[in-house]
Amino acid sequence: MGWLDIFRARKPEGGSTATAAKERLQIVLAHERVSRTREDFLPKLQQELVAVVARYVSIDPGKVAVNLDRGGDMSTLAIEIELPGPKVAVAR
Amino acid sequence: MGWLDIFRARKPEGGSTATAAKERLQIVLAHERVSRTREDFLPKLQQELVAVVARYVSIDPGKVAVNLDRGGDMSTLAIEIELPGPKVAVAR
Repeated sequence: MGWLDIFRARKPEGGSTATAAKERLQIVLAHERVSRTREDFLPKLQQELVAVVARYVSIDPGKVAVNLDRGGDMSTLAIEIELPGPKVAVAR
Repeated sequence: MGWLDIFRARKPEGGSTATAAKERLQIVLAHERVSRTREDFLPKLQQELVAVVARYVSIDPGKVAVNLDRGGDMSTLAIEIELPGPKVAVAR
């Protein structure tokens, strides 16, 4: 199962095309640790990653959802950004 | 199913703890587009994201695997970075 399938399968429930037709960028990081000596740097990465994305597309800080999940040997950081709809093309 | 479960389920096959005990960071981006007017910026993001991670942990460019997958309405970019093992703690 490739990532395309995983993300398609995770589309929001009740996603009739009208309500689900939002432009979105999802970023998921998984840090698999072998030992505890490695510091968990995911929380620090979060701001910088959103700043990098903001260089390519305008981001409304209110439309950024973050979820940090810490397991024993693995932590995941999920960032979901709803992007502004595309500019309406001017009819020629 | 949370991301922790998804990433755990995707551990490499034949992963007896000895061979799988590598420190890894996986970054997956999924860009869901509503229309074609938005430019696909994932390929450009790739270098910058690895550069951001490299500020927190040393990265061997030879240990960075990238996979870009383009569907009609969605593109995914998966970056897998094998991290150097933790420094062996000096016995006091």
